[in-house]
Amino acid sequence: MFAFRLLLLLTLLPATAFSQKKTISMEDIAFNKLRPDLHRQIQWLPGSLQFSFVTSSGTELVLADGKTGQTLRTFPVAHFSEAFKALGLSESKTVPMVTWVTETQGWINKENRILVFSLPEGQIKIHSRLPEKAERIEVCRDLKAVYTQDNGLYYTVKDSSSVQIARGENPDINFGKDVHQREFGIEKGIFLSPGGTMTAFYRSDDAGVTKYPFVDLTARPAVSVPAIYPMAGMTNQTVTIGLHTFATGKTVYLQTGEPADQYLTNITWSPDEKWVYVAHVNRDQNHMRLIRYSSETGKPVNLVFEEKDSIYTEPQSGPVFIPGKKDEFLWKSPRDGWAHFYWYSADGKLTGQVTSGNWTVVDPLGFDEKGRLIFSAVKESPLEKHVYRTALKSGKPEKLTLGEGTHLPVLAPDGNSLITTFTSLTEPGLVSLIELTKLKATVLHTAANPVQDYDTGKMELVSFKGPDSTVLFARIVVPENLETGKKYPVILYVYGGPHLQQVTQSWQGGPYSLWAQYMASQGFIVLMVDNRGTPNRGKVFEQKTFRKLGTLEIEDQMAGLEFLFSRYPQADRSRVGVFGWSYGGFMTASLMTRMPDRFKAGVSGAPVIDWSYYETVYTERYMDTPQQNPSGYKVSNVLGYVKDLKGRLLMIHGTSDPTVMWQHSLLFVKEAATTNTPLDYFVYPGHLHGIAGKDRLHLWTKITRHLLDNL
Amino acid sequence: MFAFRLLLLLTLLPATAFSQKKTISMEDIAFNKLRPDLHRQIQWLPGSLQFSFVTSSGTELVLADGKTGQTLRTFPVAHFSEAFKALGLSESKTVPMVTWVTETQGWINKENRILVFSLPEGQIKIHSRLPEKAERIEVCRDLKAVYTQDNGLYYTVKDSSSVQIARGENPDINFGKDVHQREFGIEKGIFLSPGGTMTAFYRSDDAGVTKYPFVDLTARPAVSVPAIYPMAGMTNQTVTIGLHTFATGKTVYLQTGEPADQYLTNITWSPDEKWVYVAHVNRDQNHMRLIRYSSETGKPVNLVFEEKDSIYTEPQSGPVFIPGKKDEFLWKSPRDGWAHFYWYSADGKLTGQVTSGNWTVVDPLGFDEKGRLIFSAVKESPLEKHVYRTALKSGKPEKLTLGEGTHLPVLAPDGNSLITTFTSLTEPGLVSLIELTKLKATVLHTAANPVQDYDTGKMELVSFKGPDSTVLFARIVVPENLETGKKYPVILYVYGGPHLQQVTQSWQGGPYSLWAQYMASQGFIVLMVDNRGTPNRGKVFEQKTFRKLGTLEIEDQMAGLEFLFSRYPQADRSRVGVFGWSYGGFMTASLMTRMPDRFKAGVSGAPVIDWSYYETVYTERYMDTPQQNPSGYKVSNVLGYVKDLKGRLLMIHGTSDPTVMWQHSLLFVKEAATTNTPLDYFVYPGHLHGIAGKDRLHLWTKITRHLLDNL
Repeated sequence: MFAFRLLLLLTLLPATAFSQKKTISMEDIAFNKLRPDLHRQIQWLPGSLQFSFVTSSGTELVLADGKTGQTLRTFPVAHFSEAFKALGLSESKTVPMVTWVTETQGWINKENRILVFSLPEGQIKIHSRLPEKAERIEVCRDLKAVYTQDNGLYYTVKDSSSVQIARGENPDINFGKDVHQREFGIEKGIFLSPGGTMTAFYRSDDAGVTKYPFVDLTARPAVSVPAIYPMAGMTNQTVTIGLHTFATGKTVYLQTGEPADQYLTNITWSPDEKWVYVAHVNRDQNHMRLIRYSSETGKPVNLVFEEKDSIYTEPQSGPVFIPGKKDEFLWKSPRDGWAHFYWYSADGKLTGQVTSGNWTVVDPLGFDEKGRLIFSAVKESPLEKHVYRTALKSGKPEKLTLGEGTHLPVLAPDGNSLITTFTSLTEPGLVSLIELTKLKATVLHTAANPVQDYDTGKMELVSFKGPDSTVLFARIVVPENLETGKKYPVILYVYGGPHLQQVTQSWQGGPYSLWAQYMASQGFIVLMVDNRGTPNRGKVFEQKTFRKLGTLEIEDQMAGLEFLFSRYPQADRSRVGVFGWSYGGFMTASLMTRMPDRFKAGVSGAPVIDWSYYETVYTERYMDTPQQNPSGYKVSNVLGYVKDLKGRLLMIHGTSDPTVMWQHSLLFVKEAATTNTPLDYFVYPGHLHGIAGKDRLHLWTKITRHLLDNL
Repeated sequence: MFAFRLLLLLTLLPATAFSQKKTISMEDIAFNKLRPDLHRQIQWLPGSLQFSFVTSSGTELVLADGKTGQTLRTFPVAHFSEAFKALGLSESKTVPMVTWVTETQGWINKENRILVFSLPEGQIKIHSRLPEKAERIEVCRDLKAVYTQDNGLYYTVKDSSSVQIARGENPDINFGKDVHQREFGIEKGIFLSPGGTMTAFYRSDDAGVTKYPFVDLTARPAVSVPAIYPMAGMTNQTVTIGLHTFATGKTVYLQTGEPADQYLTNITWSPDEKWVYVAHVNRDQNHMRLIRYSSETGKPVNLVFEEKDSIYTEPQSGPVFIPGKKDEFLWKSPRDGWAHFYWYSADGKLTGQVTSGNWTVVDPLGFDEKGRLIFSAVKESPLEKHVYRTALKSGKPEKLTLGEGTHLPVLAPDGNSLITTFTSLTEPGLVSLIELTKLKATVLHTAANPVQDYDTGKMELVSFKGPDSTVLFARIVVPENLETGKKYPVILYVYGGPHLQQVTQSWQGGPYSLWAQYMASQGFIVLMVDNRGTPNRGKVFEQKTFRKLGTLEIEDQMAGLEFLFSRYPQADRSRVGVFGWSYGGFMTASLMTRMPDRFKAGVSGAPVIDWSYYETVYTERYMDTPQQNPSGYKVSNVLGYVKDLKGRLLMIHGTSDPTVMWQHSLLFVKEAATTNTPLDYFVYPGHLHGIAGKDRLHLWTKITRHLLDNL
């Protein structure tokens, strides 16, 4: 996954005609100061009908009744700070993350101490002290903590005793770290068994993988910090999976077999801990095999099923077990063209397809007492997300949530209560408790509109027909009181890559949104278009860009611009700018060089320039390898178009970007220099794929100034 | 030495009032297209009264009579190309460098073949074939070649046989490479004895030296290429000197003693090869000891003399032996306040001071038949360089050259004939042959004015009193036909560091000059000031900036601006820009941040930002170590002033700069980001301290556009 998530968020506010409105500031944008006041970290307590959340300001942990939503108890940040102080730990400015393990106990990781937080009084005690260098900590229900330290894997039951599970014999051998560039939904390398008696973990051998030389500028002199980074077509790390039983100290390795150059994904324990399921994906990523292994011997038991796709297959979540049926589970797959659930047995039997139709399931949230599945899906329209319930056999989903917009649901353990945060273009956030048996909703909290008094322009969602007659969706922000006859400069804000949808019915309140609103207040029209290749539109739509990233995306974005000009005659064709980050940086650089007469200025942040310099998993999924698809890589390679650039382009990169290597933009700059192509460039030393912290103010000021000056 | 030489060259041309003048182009500037047509590589043939030169276009080698200057023979480039082709070597577009070893023979290095070029027919034969990886090749009169290969030192007498002299047991041990960052006039690591029977060479141990991680962007993925680079106050390489006798194969090492942390400089053989002289400089660089060693045993024979200086001592050239007196030599030293020659004997006896007065000797050129010294000096004024002759005892120099300007002399082996290239503000180049006995000059060649038909503005040299009443010199270029009442923007072009004089009476024809002339044609007034610390003004003037680089230089540059405003009321105080590279980049960044209200825009190229990141030898000479002079480093450190910047500054750096590490400007950018200080930045990937080749066009366009847009 592109690690940097572009939350492009815009909002429509009816103009309050008579009051002088405030202007959004660069600080508001950079530090995301105008967020709606919403509950954070909503969690149901296990085996209980209570839930907790942290207030928007982060200063209070609230415990509430799951039937009524009424507050039972609050723990202010001072409560935690005092406890920390008493334990010799540093104070806290916000409530720490509490992860509930029982209905009265949760744990907190504070400076690598595992603390127990106990209800009802909120007493805090040290359970164990992990080593200072412990990382990637996973905590069992019994508070046993498993973690990595350097290239080894360890666990601590209580106090400070540390037990080694495995350790790399050299720095290239690593245990417990995430692998395969965090693609396929991989977010970690330690997988505790449901009962906490065992752990699965990745072992990776990076010896054959090329290393990218990051440079640490804070040292005198600077030092090179090499990081493993396989580029498209190059050697991947070799991965295996170990299983460790705490009681016996015994470790077995899954016999995952040949070829070693495969992706081992979606590691999932069966509820009874007897089996481990692994989705094997071949290097070509067009063949997935779900294999069940014995957790005792590590031997494969059976090939549960396999999935092939002529383009690519990309499992992103493992089996979801059906309550009371330890060997039956749901599997999410887009195999019929749209993501749906399939009901499988461990022996490979397909009982049936649970959901179907031209819409997309998102997450299974759980099951209710009647065994019905509760899940979220994009079904009403590609722009909305709701919660649904379905019997596994009937397959007829019942919509549980209301409104035209997006729900962010958290289901109670019993499957009968749902807390959902609803937002839409006009709704900053409504937290409701829904009793699912009666479908009775209680509003718990209504967030005020944080940009009520600001000049934000006006926002709308529109659709139009793209180049191949596919319907495309777009978001447009225009200045308030747009005058006829007057001409307004246009900014195309673009992402355009897989897995990220820019145009949705949801509250638009993040930095990118505030910036678009600010630009509207400065007299700009801002456009966003979800081109082919973006998600929630079905497999055909998503896979269209295969082997030629950039090309169809450009067609669709240009069609979006044409639509804008037809809708707003005030939009000035001769003053169009474009701005995007990451895949959007690639799109910006591509648009400005491949459509040079159409853009007067642009800002390309952390762009992919030549896909052969991007990592194996992501790139090969969408492009195959450079060896397999030389012409596709050539067409997508922005370096080939640099000399055609006419508009004033500012390129920006974080010098320690671990996602899109700095080399991409430096190669672009090199080509610009050699072809005498005017270019502006800026770097944020030490920054990663996104520019974080204090420097964001400089970033937003820089971007804004470039576009204001040159459009 | 700062490796990047800023040839700031401007010219005064009277306006030809009636003709439409051409405008200098960016190509003219970038590729130095408007050079005067002048002889290159002027060389006297040993033991002969003939000389050779290559024509300005590089297409002809000319052999001429040293009495009359008449052409004896010409060898066009085709002559060489045909011979190369016949020998299986690649053709040549320009005449190769021929180095004469006898009156009829010279050698050429072509693709690591040592070729013999023989007069009169110009026959070319292969003498030896050196390995492909041979580097730093030095050739004896007998055509024996000594060279390095990887970290070893080798020689080849004839054909392809290679003899190893020494080889490093690991990559940190190197033989035959230059050391001490090429300071103290060190340009090589192999020193052949006058008769070619022995060679001296440096051995360096770099194990303790920090390495700077250059990044090679041309690889996929990029690779780190670490290069040894000791920063101020850090561990230096450990250097010793070996002497190898070819006939016996025996190598001895000079017993250079403790402390190992010393600089071994100016290695010089006595004419009879019995002794080797080495100028030892202590790490503090305030104490020089000239020690004579036995070339047979490597043992020190005697301390010839020593020189201390409360500020610094910087020997840059070794003993110059007096003909016929194998143990008597001249030594150049600024010990009395001005650089002069001193007559010493090997036993340490000081016979006397040869030259004296408030002026500066430059190079000893040789001796005539009467034993008189011929030398160049800056004597008439700090802006002119002439050739002089003096008896060693009388010490009364006789001026041998005419005109108000700068002479570039080449003395005949017998000391009686001189070829000199004379240039001044109005003289692009006059090549003359002077018979020194009769002081009779014959003009051999007159270069036409290459910018005759161009709008170059008008140039003048001026002087004014600086802040401490010292006279300072400046160069000013103004637009032709400057109108009264109109306001003109100003550009301060600055270098300001040691060892480089910007303001001289000489032809101004290089890229920086053409650029200044171009800017004048665009309506700018351009100013250059030689501040305290620059050369040819005596030791006190040069050493004033000690321990506080940047501070007095700023005072003097600002005084120069005030002088400009008083002289040209048309100069617009509110539109002043500044531009400089290397030390001039440091000055530009310092001026813009420490005088933020005075500069509207600037371009700082390859700047030193924090002296603690610059190399040991140069930095400690002028600043002491960071440990010794923390407050001086703090005052000089531009990072401390970044937040005060108000003007629009563009900073530029080559990403592989081996002189001023890229880290300097990146640290500036980092500080600008954190303090939200607007800044423009550009890099030239893969480029060194200067931007070379094709990319120069982009560089000059970038610089020019930034200043035109923002002033």
